[in-house]
Amino acid sequence: MSSSSYSNYTNSPCAACKFLRRKCTSECVFAPYFPPDEPLKFANVHRIFGASNVSKILHEVAPHQREDAVNSLAYEAEARLKDPVYGCVGAISVLQREVLRLQRELEETNADLMRYASCLGGETSAYGGRRG
Amino acid sequence: MSSSSYSNYTNSPCAACKFLRRKCTSECVFAPYFPPDEPLKFANVHRIFGASNVSKILHEVAPHQREDAVNSLAYEAEARLKDPVYGCVGAISVLQREVLRLQRELEETNADLMRYASCLGGETSAYGGRRG
Repeated sequence: MSSSSYSNYTNSPCAACKFLRRKCTSECVFAPYFPPDEPLKFANVHRIFGASNVSKILHEVAPHQREDAVNSLAYEAEARLKDPVYGCVGAISVLQREVLRLQRELEETNADLMRYASCLGGETSAYGGRRG
Repeated sequence: MSSSSYSNYTNSPCAACKFLRRKCTSECVFAPYFPPDEPLKFANVHRIFGASNVSKILHEVAPHQREDAVNSLAYEAEARLKDPVYGCVGAISVLQREVLRLQRELEETNADLMRYASCLGGETSAYGGRRG
């Protein structure tokens, strides 16, 4: 929990309770992760996952992992709002294609390297080619 | 829509309507994408996103993109059930690290290549190094 979100929390209801128009108590599971100065973060996860599913996930994970869980949910929600068809799975496809492209490029570069090594003769062991 | 899911749909309620215990009509937005022989697909997206959010997303996207939308939602839901903290954002982090590793490896291999080229003298133009 960042100190800024905590001080905000003590002054006013968290973004989740403000959005859901309910009293924000000291036991509020959302308060440490949805400070009042970031209303969009909660609005996004609520729109994509629903407050009750977010709360369920938060209760499923250990307290020290809840900030990471909220941030990954917020990332997924934002991606789905930007791209309703693919959401963040679109980023996975792009990255998978990039990994394949780099692996091919590396294989070709290693093949070039081996050709140079054989031109120089007998020095292959010094630059044996990098493994991708 | 696959022919198998359609034929299943005509015989029995889709997996969503079966799960939600409601009548599956010819207008059911879920039926083409949640055939009755894949009950887990709907159970997963319902558990993570909620049926109403999935329905909202399906209505937001064009009919020809709905199958992709459902499949990406099912992928995200399954990833979140396996890893409640990071969901499919975990896969994004792994892939981003792999891209960085391959880019570094490619840079180093290109540097080796340039060293070989300078040893052979004047042949740099033939293998000018690959761009990562």
